[in-house]
Amino acid sequence: MLADLNEFQIAGCPVRVGGSSPEALQQLLLSQFMGNSPVYVLTDSNTRKHCYPVLQRHVPALSEAICLEAEAGEQNKTLQTCERIWMQMAESGGNRNSLLINLGGGVITDLGGFAASVFHRGMPFINIPTTLMAMVDASLGGKTGVDLHGLKNQIGLFANPAAILVWPGFLDTLPEREILSGAAEICKHALIADAGMWDKIVKGSKEPLLWKEYILPAIKIKTGIVSSDPLEQGSRRLLNFGHTLGHAIETWSLRNDAIPLTHGEAVAAGMVCETRISAQIAGLPAEDRRFGHYPMNEDAIASIARLSVYDKKNRNGKHLLSLLRSVGQAADGIPCEPRLIAESLRFYASYTQSFFY
Amino acid sequence: MLADLNEFQIAGCPVRVGGSSPEALQQLLLSQFMGNSPVYVLTDSNTRKHCYPVLQRHVPALSEAICLEAEAGEQNKTLQTCERIWMQMAESGGNRNSLLINLGGGVITDLGGFAASVFHRGMPFINIPTTLMAMVDASLGGKTGVDLHGLKNQIGLFANPAAILVWPGFLDTLPEREILSGAAEICKHALIADAGMWDKIVKGSKEPLLWKEYILPAIKIKTGIVSSDPLEQGSRRLLNFGHTLGHAIETWSLRNDAIPLTHGEAVAAGMVCETRISAQIAGLPAEDRRFGHYPMNEDAIASIARLSVYDKKNRNGKHLLSLLRSVGQAADGIPCEPRLIAESLRFYASYTQSFFY
Repeated sequence: MLADLNEFQIAGCPVRVGGSSPEALQQLLLSQFMGNSPVYVLTDSNTRKHCYPVLQRHVPALSEAICLEAEAGEQNKTLQTCERIWMQMAESGGNRNSLLINLGGGVITDLGGFAASVFHRGMPFINIPTTLMAMVDASLGGKTGVDLHGLKNQIGLFANPAAILVWPGFLDTLPEREILSGAAEICKHALIADAGMWDKIVKGSKEPLLWKEYILPAIKIKTGIVSSDPLEQGSRRLLNFGHTLGHAIETWSLRNDAIPLTHGEAVAAGMVCETRISAQIAGLPAEDRRFGHYPMNEDAIASIARLSVYDKKNRNGKHLLSLLRSVGQAADGIPCEPRLIAESLRFYASYTQSFFY
Repeated sequence: MLADLNEFQIAGCPVRVGGSSPEALQQLLLSQFMGNSPVYVLTDSNTRKHCYPVLQRHVPALSEAICLEAEAGEQNKTLQTCERIWMQMAESGGNRNSLLINLGGGVITDLGGFAASVFHRGMPFINIPTTLMAMVDASLGGKTGVDLHGLKNQIGLFANPAAILVWPGFLDTLPEREILSGAAEICKHALIADAGMWDKIVKGSKEPLLWKEYILPAIKIKTGIVSSDPLEQGSRRLLNFGHTLGHAIETWSLRNDAIPLTHGEAVAAGMVCETRISAQIAGLPAEDRRFGHYPMNEDAIASIARLSVYDKKNRNGKHLLSLLRSVGQAADGIPCEPRLIAESLRFYASYTQSFFY
């Protein structure tokens, strides 16, 4: 089970995991950020309602904070949303000596981290992830960014938060679909780096809230990989397993579906495809597919294959994938022919069951 | 006179000044950036016509470069222009291993530096300034950014180019008004750091192209200040002399004039105002006013005074100015009451001559 308090560093940024995170925020505001003004809290409509009141109750130092609100959802992780936030900050006296607290899922920590890092050439920010996805992945590691006309994370930069405070209590109000989205990244962390953890996940209960017990081990896997390569010049690319195709599928879904896939659902589909490719060109001996199914026709497959060329890992027009050599052992920069990408999508599409939203 | 070749570093970034800069670009592309693809050259309509052909003639390695074009003028230093550039890069296979060469004045080097630094979380860029302003100031020192609804440089970051190549030959086709705009920053460099240079400027000829001889000394002043404080946490703020009011005047002019002031013209007006304030609160014994006049009525003065609160140096709602203790010696972080700002604008407005555009 999760210990009450765990503190460590990820690429120099302090991370605190456990029930006393709100108190840690109070301490931080009174010590390190005493002179920073105004203090902004960025929320979406969900976290403003469910999480911001909790934070205000536990953190008296936030009494004069200014609450900003972005519309919820990946389709709002845009420059236009940033522009609204920047104007609100400019008009309320925001400056490089202010502070932005990102209270939300991966959309809020990605977008808020970017917005803070380029406002007046950089103001400090703190991440308080409220979804499982953000707790085990998005809020950690200094990647910030927004989408560009639906292309994922094309615009952003590496910028470390001043601190990351992970309070699993926020998960208790989260819909099951959101918990499962985060579970996809927990599975990814296990698949690329910890065969024993993967084994435990496969054999364990799938009760949504029981995923809480994997928060700390998943964060530690990510911390280890990011700390050895913070700017993604090599081994950090392992974390992209499932994401080259996952991002392409996610982009396609955002453009075409009334209720688009969550990031985790798209990554789950991407992991199935990339597991298939791993078996073909990276030596993976067996496959394990535990995720739901997203239906795709030939048009969708062709579009998604084309979208995968926008992946940031590609160099000089070549597809470079992070794939599995075996469960628990990933390798990065494996060149992959475009036809294998389309073929893996067709393989995925040939499933019969369909239980995504 | 300017030596043919001068090479030095500004905060770790190599700067080459002199006639052989185009050859230096050819060498750089063939050595350091051999594998970077695509190579983009960002121009505006002027530099595409007058400067890009010159560069192509001298630099055969650019034969496969992709030329991007932003509309000329400060009013186009916007997120919307960046968005168009990002889409063009995304659609032509741009990635973090591409290269952007910024060929233009301060608008192009500010905007291109920002666009490159946040595309795919950062691709390398090279600055080739083509205006006197950009050669002595804007292209140097790692400040990048765009305006936000007319508010100057609200969005950006500190990011060093891979190299800065200064070729004064580009000045020969520049209109006189553009030369004089750059001369304002040369005067500023002298006023804050070199009384002897200021004396020489005051006594010397005002023939536009003779300002070329001040390029190297002006770059050296800026280099010294930036290298000691690259992230503007202290002494670098000296370079903002004239800019708190200059930016406010420039923003006002951009919003209200059919042909807005150049940056240099606005800074010149700002320096007159801040010289006045320097005499009132920073101990400056004498004033010297050598710039043209921009007419302002009481409405304009009130608006400009309000706009000056958006200055990035301000902290906790206080105006903090960089002012002159004496000619050649500036000081930063001097608190200034708002009424002195409005009063200095009224003082400036009381001039009778008017020879700005």
